[in-house]
Amino acid sequence: MKALVYHGSGQRSWESVPDAALQLPSDVVVHVDAVTICGTDLHILKGDVPTVTPGRILGHEALGTVVEVGSSVQRVKVGDRVLVSCISACGGCRYCRERAYGQCRGGGGWILGHLIDGTQAEFVRVPFADNSTYKIPAGVSDEQMILLADILPTAYEVGVLNGTVRPADVVAIVGAGPIGLAAVLTAKLFSPSHIVAIDRADTRLEAALKLGASAVVNPDRDDPAALIAELTGGLGADVTVEAVGIPQTFDLAVSLVRPGGHVANIGVHGAPVTLHLEDLWIKNLTLTTGLVDTYSTSTLIDLVASHQLDTASMITHRFKLDEFEAAYDVFAKAADTGALKVLVTA
Amino acid sequence: MKALVYHGSGQRSWESVPDAALQLPSDVVVHVDAVTICGTDLHILKGDVPTVTPGRILGHEALGTVVEVGSSVQRVKVGDRVLVSCISACGGCRYCRERAYGQCRGGGGWILGHLIDGTQAEFVRVPFADNSTYKIPAGVSDEQMILLADILPTAYEVGVLNGTVRPADVVAIVGAGPIGLAAVLTAKLFSPSHIVAIDRADTRLEAALKLGASAVVNPDRDDPAALIAELTGGLGADVTVEAVGIPQTFDLAVSLVRPGGHVANIGVHGAPVTLHLEDLWIKNLTLTTGLVDTYSTSTLIDLVASHQLDTASMITHRFKLDEFEAAYDVFAKAADTGALKVLVTA
Amino acid sequence: MKALVYHGSGQRSWESVPDAALQLPSDVVVHVDAVTICGTDLHILKGDVPTVTPGRILGHEALGTVVEVGSSVQRVKVGDRVLVSCISACGGCRYCRERAYGQCRGGGGWILGHLIDGTQAEFVRVPFADNSTYKIPAGVSDEQMILLADILPTAYEVGVLNGTVRPADVVAIVGAGPIGLAAVLTAKLFSPSHIVAIDRADTRLEAALKLGASAVVNPDRDDPAALIAELTGGLGADVTVEAVGIPQTFDLAVSLVRPGGHVANIGVHGAPVTLHLEDLWIKNLTLTTGLVDTYSTSTLIDLVASHQLDTASMITHRFKLDEFEAAYDVFAKAADTGALKVLVTA
Amino acid sequence: MKALVYHGSGQRSWESVPDAALQLPSDVVVHVDAVTICGTDLHILKGDVPTVTPGRILGHEALGTVVEVGSSVQRVKVGDRVLVSCISACGGCRYCRERAYGQCRGGGGWILGHLIDGTQAEFVRVPFADNSTYKIPAGVSDEQMILLADILPTAYEVGVLNGTVRPADVVAIVGAGPIGLAAVLTAKLFSPSHIVAIDRADTRLEAALKLGASAVVNPDRDDPAALIAELTGGLGADVTVEAVGIPQTFDLAVSLVRPGGHVANIGVHGAPVTLHLEDLWIKNLTLTTGLVDTYSTSTLIDLVASHQLDTASMITHRFKLDEFEAAYDVFAKAADTGALKVLVTA
Repeated sequence: MKALVYHGSGQRSWESVPDAALQLPSDVVVHVDAVTICGTDLHILKGDVPTVTPGRILGHEALGTVVEVGSSVQRVKVGDRVLVSCISACGGCRYCRERAYGQCRGGGGWILGHLIDGTQAEFVRVPFADNSTYKIPAGVSDEQMILLADILPTAYEVGVLNGTVRPADVVAIVGAGPIGLAAVLTAKLFSPSHIVAIDRADTRLEAALKLGASAVVNPDRDDPAALIAELTGGLGADVTVEAVGIPQTFDLAVSLVRPGGHVANIGVHGAPVTLHLEDLWIKNLTLTTGLVDTYSTSTLIDLVASHQLDTASMITHRFKLDEFEAAYDVFAKAADTGALKVLVTA
Repeated sequence: MKALVYHGSGQRSWESVPDAALQLPSDVVVHVDAVTICGTDLHILKGDVPTVTPGRILGHEALGTVVEVGSSVQRVKVGDRVLVSCISACGGCRYCRERAYGQCRGGGGWILGHLIDGTQAEFVRVPFADNSTYKIPAGVSDEQMILLADILPTAYEVGVLNGTVRPADVVAIVGAGPIGLAAVLTAKLFSPSHIVAIDRADTRLEAALKLGASAVVNPDRDDPAALIAELTGGLGADVTVEAVGIPQTFDLAVSLVRPGGHVANIGVHGAPVTLHLEDLWIKNLTLTTGLVDTYSTSTLIDLVASHQLDTASMITHRFKLDEFEAAYDVFAKAADTGALKVLVTA
Repeated sequence: MKALVYHGSGQRSWESVPDAALQLPSDVVVHVDAVTICGTDLHILKGDVPTVTPGRILGHEALGTVVEVGSSVQRVKVGDRVLVSCISACGGCRYCRERAYGQCRGGGGWILGHLIDGTQAEFVRVPFADNSTYKIPAGVSDEQMILLADILPTAYEVGVLNGTVRPADVVAIVGAGPIGLAAVLTAKLFSPSHIVAIDRADTRLEAALKLGASAVVNPDRDDPAALIAELTGGLGADVTVEAVGIPQTFDLAVSLVRPGGHVANIGVHGAPVTLHLEDLWIKNLTLTTGLVDTYSTSTLIDLVASHQLDTASMITHRFKLDEFEAAYDVFAKAADTGALKVLVTA
Repeated sequence: MKALVYHGSGQRSWESVPDAALQLPSDVVVHVDAVTICGTDLHILKGDVPTVTPGRILGHEALGTVVEVGSSVQRVKVGDRVLVSCISACGGCRYCRERAYGQCRGGGGWILGHLIDGTQAEFVRVPFADNSTYKIPAGVSDEQMILLADILPTAYEVGVLNGTVRPADVVAIVGAGPIGLAAVLTAKLFSPSHIVAIDRADTRLEAALKLGASAVVNPDRDDPAALIAELTGGLGADVTVEAVGIPQTFDLAVSLVRPGGHVANIGVHGAPVTLHLEDLWIKNLTLTTGLVDTYSTSTLIDLVASHQLDTASMITHRFKLDEFEAAYDVFAKAADTGALKVLVTA
């Protein structure tokens, strides 16, 4: 089969590899009908994720058709059309029992396109298939569904639910890349009074407004703190979401929150940050971090199916599998291309 | 009257001052029957709290007898014996309405012995008396009650409740000074499997064992991480409480917690800390900070009255008011004197 | 002044009475600019609420302008335009401290138009004014604001929040009178997948659809259980709200809920109900009841101000104060007149 | 092998039956080392549970040694000593994913000794073994462990956790049979101020005092309401637990709770109850019901292992397997024999 293979820092190619095959009784093999690229894949390509070794097939978001089923699989059968979740879950360890599948101690967690071959291929082996795939219900299009593989549950769980967004809250989202935009989209589910998106790219701020932000700020031109102060009588935001992953944006997220508020970090950080506890110790702050657990995937599917959530609006570019390298080029230059999510289909 | 007056960095004296008197209709004046010294008072004396100006009477923990009552006070009357809480609450601002009295925007919060004259005196004016005092119930001794002015609600709310200690948890408490010991005492209310106290002073570790720690570690001799790993199968503590307030102890508290666990910061920090988000972003961490709100004071009174909590065991030294300077000397040299809480009575 | 006075079962008149006046230092007197009639007022007029004695001025929902202020009032002043909440709160009792103002033990709770004279008058005395009134913010019309006096917080707190409506839930609301419709409106704040309204009056079902119900059922024609089963794969609704107050509708609400679901009772019941614990003991049911506490009033104001909630659409008829008796006639015959809320203005 | 077989209402015998054997790949077969009798078994024997058909081996509490393991079992192996939980869990259905294993839709739930052959036998087949058994850790005796099969998680989850017992609460437990006593034992984990046990059998009240109740009432002699009023200033209990299952005790549990309190029903009811909503609609009541889900079993094991919980004190009588009929006789006449839990060992 063909697949997108990582060959060390900065090197990738769409090339022939051995076919995906069952390895364990709880595996299935899925024919990939649609797949996307995640910002994390770009990190890997920069060499920032040393646990990904050369030769690895990338990708942890996909949907497709089950073509082979291991002997102990109970709830998935050949022909099922399924979402392949970015998180695989053994289902039985302490963390899986508490629905913290991302922290699975039984061999799961984020392994696809990381510790085992991933979804950017014609076929993919999916371990722990009973707990790691979701049937695509009637009435949900592939374009809606595929965003539930990673970005939507990540923004919803790690941003919105960890941040405990509530009706009438003022929410500030630092970073309006795909993950920040997905946080805009899912924060709206709780009817905050104001969602303020902050980014340096005006194209992204425009996208934020379209997806439901009530205000946007480009910090190169305006002061986010001034806007938040205006909206909150000088108090600060109820919830801030960090959706970038660098010290400056973390600082900004912390500085914008009110006493008693929540800072929900989604950003993947590569360096330590400074936490000003000399000011914050007294501020009744709650700060959360997290890898997605995907415990919300079923909820998000129901929300899409009932038209409470329009995920497909985040897809800006579409490619075929044999154009995978072009898809990467477009996604990697999002500032120029305006790419949010690129869809690659069979 | 006589009072303990701050005269700038390093300077204090027990001296004559004008009598405490009503200023606002919601005030009461209390004859101080018993008062203690807080670690924060030592910080003030070092000049670390610039909002405290020379001439200020120190102290924010006391109990006594009401001798004068303002015209709008509804629930306190002359002759009542009351606890004077470290936190004053206007009762009507947004934060008071949410029981976050420590964050009061209506003129309250931590003001006693800070922005207004405090309790280390023969008499003290208590603002917002209806919301800032608690009647001493029959069957609760002064020695039990006085610790509910600050240290017990602080340890309970900011450490144990913010940390969400649950039955069977493994709890690590970094720092076994008075506040850390009060965290040991109140963590037990939720029946954790193990409470590990960590401190460099063996006298404090002995006190921790007496108050209910199941294990203690002196990091100069043993590795706290090794003990926590042994108790948790290598996973880390469910909850860690930072009860010191310096970067090293904060680092330790963060390093000991398991994925998905809580770090509850109680320590009063004077400098920023480094937060290793490059490791922690993926760890489903919850970090909380806070000044005490004293929303739990009534609960703690009920616990003392029903013998679920023995607070008086934390009092190690007793003085009369005219020995106040000696009391400070003993408390300031806790490492030598073994002082936990010193009680000064009229 | 003129007021609507209750003269015993079935008897009321708009007549001259002594002017409202301050009685306690925490009172204010408000000139009534707008007032509504509540279903509870009809119950009183039927003689169903014996604690209301003849001679009482009815009404517990209003907004107006403050004309006189008691000596201990802190946060309200003459000239303020305020919402008068249906619940008065002493602010200091155990229940008020926990924001359960409806259960106030200090002389508050539901007293207006019940134990003391109410708001259906030219002027009204409001006790505990600091805790029982809310300033009308710029940008919120009187017609939006007045529904926050009772019906909106009741539906939101006792129905939606007690029922813990969550994104993607299936919610069944039994009864589409004003309170049931307000539950439809506020349930939407949490983005349920489906809101099913159930009533025997088709005009009310039409109103439910306009306010955001995704489906409606008239049980005289269709089986609500069949619709809920279809929406939930036979499982039952996640949350059911009882908004009528009779045994049959309670039975229906309980019968429609799934195992592990919530039944939130808002209905004011006059008779006992049968609870089929022989079936329900095993069903992991949560059943809640409650009088409104109005802890959510500020949140609801923010939601109206930020256009997340359109309350004014519930007002169907408008009158002047001297047409008060006509207003009662229209409201009492809601089945014929299609009245939801009637507004009476000065 | 030998087993205790139900032969229709009132009839049982310890007799020879075919050996337990694997049926599905997720099964294990366990040699029963110790087993108990549950109150539910007595209900079955009275013919009250028609889903149990003649020929069924009874019993849903046991521990033993694994002797055979199905092909898809991952986490249990031959020779493991395990607790057999009363609840079997498929692990993959909607309810199992939310840890509501008792409501399993995938073929699990309470099936042992109910829909399939149970544990009162020399060997037992355990379905879904990965999710339905728990390894017995070093340092936990069989006598401690076996009570975690049903009665402890039932009392803890359905009584204490559903009732949200908190530090300083006043808790009333109606019924001091084994399940009520287990509620006494586990309520203590949250340090309530008072635990009041109510029963008509003085021997059970004595047991309640030994297990940690702070007061007991025999309603044939004293008025439970009077004692609760005395402890709560007339307000009512924070939490009441119904642990009998008849209308009178349910009424009592509801009548004893304060406004805003919780009634947690554990009792297995055979008849409807009357709920006085004409009084309760206004009372901010929360009422919960439930079959045990056993999500707390690991927590309870940790609590026993760390000596926070002493379950073995509930075992009053001990028998060998071939004395099973005598064990039933003693347990069925608990009023005379004082039996709480009877242990039957191989």
